[in-house]
Amino acid sequence: MAAKKVLIVYAHQSSASFNSAAKDAAKEVLAAQGCTVEVSDLYAMKFKATATAEDITGDVKNAAHFRYAEETKLAWEEGKLCADITEEQRKLTEADLIIFQFPMYWFTVPAIMKGWMDRVLTLGYAYSEERRYSQGILKDKKAMLSFTTGSHESMFSADGVNGDMNVTLWPLQNGILHYCGFQVLAPQIFWAPSRLPSEARGTLLEGWRTRLQGVLSEKPLSFTPLDCFDGEKGFQLKPEFQEKNASKEYGLTVGIHLGKALPLNSQMKAGV
Amino acid sequence: MAAKKVLIVYAHQSSASFNSAAKDAAKEVLAAQGCTVEVSDLYAMKFKATATAEDITGDVKNAAHFRYAEETKLAWEEGKLCADITEEQRKLTEADLIIFQFPMYWFTVPAIMKGWMDRVLTLGYAYSEERRYSQGILKDKKAMLSFTTGSHESMFSADGVNGDMNVTLWPLQNGILHYCGFQVLAPQIFWAPSRLPSEARGTLLEGWRTRLQGVLSEKPLSFTPLDCFDGEKGFQLKPEFQEKNASKEYGLTVGIHLGKALPLNSQMKAGV
Repeated sequence: MAAKKVLIVYAHQSSASFNSAAKDAAKEVLAAQGCTVEVSDLYAMKFKATATAEDITGDVKNAAHFRYAEETKLAWEEGKLCADITEEQRKLTEADLIIFQFPMYWFTVPAIMKGWMDRVLTLGYAYSEERRYSQGILKDKKAMLSFTTGSHESMFSADGVNGDMNVTLWPLQNGILHYCGFQVLAPQIFWAPSRLPSEARGTLLEGWRTRLQGVLSEKPLSFTPLDCFDGEKGFQLKPEFQEKNASKEYGLTVGIHLGKALPLNSQMKAGV
Repeated sequence: MAAKKVLIVYAHQSSASFNSAAKDAAKEVLAAQGCTVEVSDLYAMKFKATATAEDITGDVKNAAHFRYAEETKLAWEEGKLCADITEEQRKLTEADLIIFQFPMYWFTVPAIMKGWMDRVLTLGYAYSEERRYSQGILKDKKAMLSFTTGSHESMFSADGVNGDMNVTLWPLQNGILHYCGFQVLAPQIFWAPSRLPSEARGTLLEGWRTRLQGVLSEKPLSFTPLDCFDGEKGFQLKPEFQEKNASKEYGLTVGIHLGKALPLNSQMKAGV
């Protein structure tokens, strides 16, 4: 396999954290396979999280009614996006695999990482109305969420009080990653490492290292392809796929998006 | 009804936006009912989105391994949270109803609003292991998401390419709002106003004004109460509720969290 480029977008305040160790393990194991690994250490970079007119150098088109998506699309086309966004887009453009490494904050990524998504995945650069989902602009790249939770796994089961983790991840994995076209690898979930003794945390990291050795050849999760939806009817599932989808298992969900969710363990097995 | 206090947490860069008009309509209609309305205009405030050690005044407990949740819990107990968090917590503590007004960015709130959630909903102040969900600390307050989408409603239906909007909102409505105890009112969704002619946008705002007139007496969405889960078995649904939940409709979902989602229209009808 040709050498690959990997970008790790990493969000933890402390280099003594489990997340930092997970990031370092990925760097090391992937580099040992000949990959070039870049890390965007968002807190260390003091990465700007908020989407503002300052993201555009020079004048905006319509200052009286500033529209972020439209203005940044234009700025991207004209080479007027600010330096930090341009630099992150360079890293993303070069990468074959992007790993998002973070502690789950409130059932999703921390604000600083959401800011990376809001600001770097610019309209025109990362998606457009014509090119999204399975026809998305970034469809030759892979992406993966790798994160720690505060809660135990049982709370995130289908019968658990937090609901199924697959549902919690849907907006991130389908709505952001797959929307841009990324092939989404099964999430790497470190369940509540802060509640574990240090040997058990070591075991989690060993499992991660083992997975990383084969991560570049993992089969991505599958989503219902865009051409199963009728673009002239508001992107509703075409009738001919409705029955098929009712019984078919997809990566994240069974049937069409919802219904019974696939156990995470099966995902992980399929993934690893 | 006694006069109520309302906090609008608002995130749009432009005062000419539809979101700004929706925020102004809420201010006006609620004030006309005798409510006291405060607005946190996050972009205007240049609200800090990122969760860092600077959120604590003075020394942190463990600088070598900084843990945000634990450090800010301690700082809150000792009155050492920084000024902007303390001020937002004052507004939240006084409020009976919180409205989050925002344009949906990437299937959730913009990073600046996620930052408000990450930083203001401090461990100890807004939730604890002992007090969450239906026993949550903020259970005497109501909260509502009010937002604009870029996509048409059809794309967010159960058969639509984005998947069911109820699923997209699950991490926000269950994982953040309900987790803290908030009684969650049905979301106010403005479907793709930027694609509408201005008269149609006016009609949307009129509908919002009408809803606001009765919003203080709306029945909240219902969630499976915490005591249906077995705290000694990892917060799994107790067997005696499994059958009951399989057929019962909840606010956001049918059965236990997932399964078939309730159409948004029914929610809205139940809500309004």
